[in-house]
Amino acid sequence: METPIVILNFKTYTESTGKRALELAGACQEVADETGVNIAVAPQHMDLQPVAEAVDIPVLAQHIDPIDAGGHTGGVLAECALEAGAAGTLINHSEKRMKLADIENVISRTRKLNMASVVCTNNVSTTAAAAALKPDFVAVEPPELIGSGIPVSKAEPEVITGSVSAVQDINPDVSVLCGAGISTGEDMRAALDLGAEGVLLASGIILAESPRDALLDLVSKV
Amino acid sequence: METPIVILNFKTYTESTGKRALELAGACQEVADETGVNIAVAPQHMDLQPVAEAVDIPVLAQHIDPIDAGGHTGGVLAECALEAGAAGTLINHSEKRMKLADIENVISRTRKLNMASVVCTNNVSTTAAAAALKPDFVAVEPPELIGSGIPVSKAEPEVITGSVSAVQDINPDVSVLCGAGISTGEDMRAALDLGAEGVLLASGIILAESPRDALLDLVSKV
Amino acid sequence: METPIVILNFKTYTESTGKRALELAGACQEVADETGVNIAVAPQHMDLQPVAEAVDIPVLAQHIDPIDAGGHTGGVLAECALEAGAAGTLINHSEKRMKLADIENVISRTRKLNMASVVCTNNVSTTAAAAALKPDFVAVEPPELIGSGIPVSKAEPEVITGSVSAVQDINPDVSVLCGAGISTGEDMRAALDLGAEGVLLASGIILAESPRDALLDLVSKV
Amino acid sequence: METPIVILNFKTYTESTGKRALELAGACQEVADETGVNIAVAPQHMDLQPVAEAVDIPVLAQHIDPIDAGGHTGGVLAECALEAGAAGTLINHSEKRMKLADIENVISRTRKLNMASVVCTNNVSTTAAAAALKPDFVAVEPPELIGSGIPVSKAEPEVITGSVSAVQDINPDVSVLCGAGISTGEDMRAALDLGAEGVLLASGIILAESPRDALLDLVSKV
Repeated sequence: METPIVILNFKTYTESTGKRALELAGACQEVADETGVNIAVAPQHMDLQPVAEAVDIPVLAQHIDPIDAGGHTGGVLAECALEAGAAGTLINHSEKRMKLADIENVISRTRKLNMASVVCTNNVSTTAAAAALKPDFVAVEPPELIGSGIPVSKAEPEVITGSVSAVQDINPDVSVLCGAGISTGEDMRAALDLGAEGVLLASGIILAESPRDALLDLVSKV
Repeated sequence: METPIVILNFKTYTESTGKRALELAGACQEVADETGVNIAVAPQHMDLQPVAEAVDIPVLAQHIDPIDAGGHTGGVLAECALEAGAAGTLINHSEKRMKLADIENVISRTRKLNMASVVCTNNVSTTAAAAALKPDFVAVEPPELIGSGIPVSKAEPEVITGSVSAVQDINPDVSVLCGAGISTGEDMRAALDLGAEGVLLASGIILAESPRDALLDLVSKV
Repeated sequence: METPIVILNFKTYTESTGKRALELAGACQEVADETGVNIAVAPQHMDLQPVAEAVDIPVLAQHIDPIDAGGHTGGVLAECALEAGAAGTLINHSEKRMKLADIENVISRTRKLNMASVVCTNNVSTTAAAAALKPDFVAVEPPELIGSGIPVSKAEPEVITGSVSAVQDINPDVSVLCGAGISTGEDMRAALDLGAEGVLLASGIILAESPRDALLDLVSKV
Repeated sequence: METPIVILNFKTYTESTGKRALELAGACQEVADETGVNIAVAPQHMDLQPVAEAVDIPVLAQHIDPIDAGGHTGGVLAECALEAGAAGTLINHSEKRMKLADIENVISRTRKLNMASVVCTNNVSTTAAAAALKPDFVAVEPPELIGSGIPVSKAEPEVITGSVSAVQDINPDVSVLCGAGISTGEDMRAALDLGAEGVLLASGIILAESPRDALLDLVSKV
């Protein structure tokens, strides 16, 4: 996955479930094609296969479990996600926090399968820790701003610059994304100017009157 | 879902992932059609939509989360499962144990959506407790026998008869299934004779040289 | 533990930590002695031994883990709680929800050690399920009312009467307590009149200007 | 806590519960006094206060929760541990794995209270990640060797040297301990020679015929 990038996390909103997940992913593909900006989508587990079949942009899992093939009822197996069409996965989202050893396990697992790993973190310290685990991306999101409409790039710019600097020290191969409260082209531009290589977002686009227009605005200043 | 029934839990075996999940589900459909025995399948989350599209027998989710539509990254939303084609779900499998309040929540949730609920339990006491929550099915599986090849109907028949009797007392509308170590027609016959209305199984069929033949044997004495 | 009973859950409030836990437990003992009403206290793990040494009223653990003696770092072993002076334990409090199989396991464990078991539940259905597991007490607390100051006996009396009736059907040996929003003598009287055999409470007493006076009021109409 | 150090994790063994926890802690104190080697003990939650009152060597909690004072029934509050006599705490033991954000939270919490933090990890990568969170100690323990009797210093010396080197790069203020399979003076000497500043151990001492003699042997080559 190339940067700068927009990753749209579909979460479990009604507006991004089933047939509407397909429509939303289609809109993402169109905006990516029209503007040339990299956009990836992370639909729900049960929507992943149909979405991956329908679009050409990268499709990510929202979560993968630290498990080998075998007896793990209800688990999300990396190999199953890969075969379903996932190019990578979110890891440790604030709504699906994982144990440290499990984050490391899933990063190793995805690396072996050539899947992209995007580890979510909540502050500069955990971003530094995540970078030490050598994922492809770290996406820092102060939890209190998620879904708030207040962009992290404005409310806590030092979280982005601090994360970029900490990652630079520990592992410069890791790309820093940021999230929480991001929804406009101005927010994304500010994030890039602070050193982020992209954004991870959800409600700002998914719940917009026209997700397509909201996406067009979001990437307008990249 | 009518009884007597066989529910095949695909778990996360390599042998039941992706394309092989489709083949396995196809074999289940054929055996159901040929023999007239009710068979349902529970594939992995990311295989559920394609499997449900490919077969006409009931398809179950392996797990559903106690969540409303919204911000629940990585969660399994009942409405998403339904739209993907799930006719019901396993709940509280021994490999995905749930909190009591969450089991009750998911049973209520599936009831409202007309989805079948199959609560897994580990002994007579927890079976009685689960029956008080009014699911459609309780599937009792002594954890020490799961994947052992030693059928519960032989090793601990009193778990089945005790469960049937406890459920009868608390809520006779609930059907009792049993699992753990079940793989042959004789095992299934014994389970039905002990009062169970079907079986929940996995490795005995999935890892068999020919799952189709193993299934044919399994249902041969129903 | 005899009924009617008041169980005071110390939770992890500053006002009920360390030296202040000892003072609070002392006040409970005095009120029990003066009024003849049964009062039990549930201090934090690390305060349990000193509290149990200081008072004669029953002292409960706030939680016990479903573990045997062995390698379980950070776990709460029933035998350790017993030796520290615990007469019983809360199980599955809304702030420490447990898996169904683990609740059953801990109830069995405490029964063997002659410790009292108080399973917390959130509604009539889960109360019925808990009663099927044969604990000594079920304490039903609608989570939305916990710490609200709005007494369950007033806001949702049908939760209490429904719980009493469900338990009567399933296992009449189980005593029903109620909690959530209870703080005055009137609240407790209403709870008893609805069929409860006692109350489980915390902030209404612990955060009162004078916990001793609040307790005296609470038990004044028993 | 000064290094080189031995931290004895009491876990939840019968041999280190209640009165026997006091005896074991007493033996640790004697060996520390006789030999001048730093020894710290980590008893069960409910044994912590009496042990801390009985001995002068550092006493650690086995776990602390990422919680503020308030409504957290069953939780371990840092302030309660401190008042009970804890000089610090284990964090993220392999038997009590924690989420990344929670590890960071508890390290910050203990730092503010001047309590020592000992984060347990399972390999070089997670050790590097933990070091980025700035605890006082990281104790690396390959889980497969815990309780095995096969010392990590012999079976996987590269885990120790790799951890020491990774920590040196990321945060040289952090001291590396090692554990898993350590029980003799030779094991501990090997660990120190590989760059560790101490050991974290349990069964090798606790289950020894004479824990006192086992400890004397353990520290004999420091």
